[in-house]
Amino acid sequence: MKRRQFFGSAAMVAVGAAAATRVVAQEQTYTIGVSIPSATHGFMGGLNWHAQEAINRVEAAYPNVKFVLATAGEAGKQVDDLEDMLATRNIDGLVVLPFESEPLTGPVKAVKDAGKWVTVVDRGLSQPNIEDLYVAGDNTAFGRVAGEYFKNNLPSGAKIVLLRGIPTTLDNERVEAFEAAIEGSGIELLDKQHGNWNRDDAFTVMQDYLSKYPQIDAVWASDDDMAIGVAEAIAQAGRTDEMWIVGGAGMKEIVKKVQDGDKQFPVNVTYPPAQIATAIEMTALAFVSSAPVAGRFIIGSVLITPENAAQFYFPDSPF
Amino acid sequence: MKRRQFFGSAAMVAVGAAAATRVVAQEQTYTIGVSIPSATHGFMGGLNWHAQEAINRVEAAYPNVKFVLATAGEAGKQVDDLEDMLATRNIDGLVVLPFESEPLTGPVKAVKDAGKWVTVVDRGLSQPNIEDLYVAGDNTAFGRVAGEYFKNNLPSGAKIVLLRGIPTTLDNERVEAFEAAIEGSGIELLDKQHGNWNRDDAFTVMQDYLSKYPQIDAVWASDDDMAIGVAEAIAQAGRTDEMWIVGGAGMKEIVKKVQDGDKQFPVNVTYPPAQIATAIEMTALAFVSSAPVAGRFIIGSVLITPENAAQFYFPDSPF
Repeated sequence: MKRRQFFGSAAMVAVGAAAATRVVAQEQTYTIGVSIPSATHGFMGGLNWHAQEAINRVEAAYPNVKFVLATAGEAGKQVDDLEDMLATRNIDGLVVLPFESEPLTGPVKAVKDAGKWVTVVDRGLSQPNIEDLYVAGDNTAFGRVAGEYFKNNLPSGAKIVLLRGIPTTLDNERVEAFEAAIEGSGIELLDKQHGNWNRDDAFTVMQDYLSKYPQIDAVWASDDDMAIGVAEAIAQAGRTDEMWIVGGAGMKEIVKKVQDGDKQFPVNVTYPPAQIATAIEMTALAFVSSAPVAGRFIIGSVLITPENAAQFYFPDSPF
Repeated sequence: MKRRQFFGSAAMVAVGAAAATRVVAQEQTYTIGVSIPSATHGFMGGLNWHAQEAINRVEAAYPNVKFVLATAGEAGKQVDDLEDMLATRNIDGLVVLPFESEPLTGPVKAVKDAGKWVTVVDRGLSQPNIEDLYVAGDNTAFGRVAGEYFKNNLPSGAKIVLLRGIPTTLDNERVEAFEAAIEGSGIELLDKQHGNWNRDDAFTVMQDYLSKYPQIDAVWASDDDMAIGVAEAIAQAGRTDEMWIVGGAGMKEIVKKVQDGDKQFPVNVTYPPAQIATAIEMTALAFVSSAPVAGRFIIGSVLITPENAAQFYFPDSPF
């Protein structure tokens, strides 16, 4: 019965930092490689910024953890980066956002086979169970959270349009979850065309919607780049006051509008480029703590409102 | 095109800790409540120990993060603990392993509705989407990893028995994954009875197996407490050299046997009580970092072998 008494009377206790901490081997230094695509567009720009920020934070918190960061503009460069990290940088762990799944699977497996910790971010590899930790966004929640906002903030009979991304499983998951969330609300979805996560394409699609539909109460642009194209088309049609727009991913310009109470952008939904920071922080825990961090972490999508926008606004990030 | 140049030439760079770190507001102190069941049996004893260890580690790493730990022997006490944390302890966040789902759902929702961060561990609440973060083990992987070991280490025609836990969805997931993993191996599963995660029940079930089956090559006990009961029955029958046993959950006595190369316990599979440490570490990150940690983290089950056993052996833990 000794185990039963482990915490004595099981009363609530305020825990002091002075209690016997399992000592982390501070003298041992760990090197973690971080391999990500270059900052070629908005989202990746943000991801690069958050990677750097997380590296700085972890290195400041844990003097015995060092990072090697490599960015690649194409898959071949990323393969070379991994080989270099393994051959000459003596990494203990790797955080990798694969440029493409297929060409990176072998090289990432080689890192794992060499006995290193491997964290894969956002895009899975072509083979299962190679990585120790997988960190990614939640496309179903991304659509559901947006859909719930529409359902809760539009009357039955309201008319909406939506813009889809590039035709992918990912986009299907998002759109299906959105449609499921508005089901039974009486909201009428007038149209859903592909804007391909592209500002110009979204502008064209929205121009078409505006010419076809005399009444539109709200737009699910499903992406902040598309939201900007949509807003431009609405402005040119002089119908800005008629409808609001929900984008997605937390682009700083849009988050700022939400924070400022802009009626055109009442909320946003996260699909955070900061997921790379989560991957870096959790990988560091694999070395500095005894908490198990092998597994699968799906980052939830959260509704950004004027009340909580500050915590999602990174003015120094390019995205 | 400014964004494209965010990381300049995208070459590999060793990152110095001196770079501009986003300063965490060190002056602000955060209090995190941790509410868990008392150490009433082996696994919970381990979980209590790991909770304390993680609290000590985080408080040492982050002087501005404090914890209030409460352990409860029944659901009513845990409800009181949560009310106290909210009313008088002024917590900013909560890590809770619900004693039971139903009676704790309302009280945990009250904490969330009060604007606090909520992390739920191991057992879900009766309503979805209350918590910010959910941390739990992976029952499918728990069965699959064990099954793959049997498949890779027994010849076709080998005869095995398995012991099931208490009849639950959780136990079904584990057993189905195990059976799927050995499919096509030619291994013959002689029997699968419920030992209810109980040492004595497992002893009785194994006695029955031993009297019925003249040849048994291996046992999947699917739990370390059951593995101990099984080993006792085998010893009394004088058949110790005939078969090996795989338990599960990483009880320290069993991990030690694996580490020592005991032929009766060649491997083990994790379902770690240290998942509470993961929940505590990730909740701390919600306050000290800007990494998004809202979401769903399913901790992988890992094969413990003589080679890696050291990292799963906690001699000071009661489990």
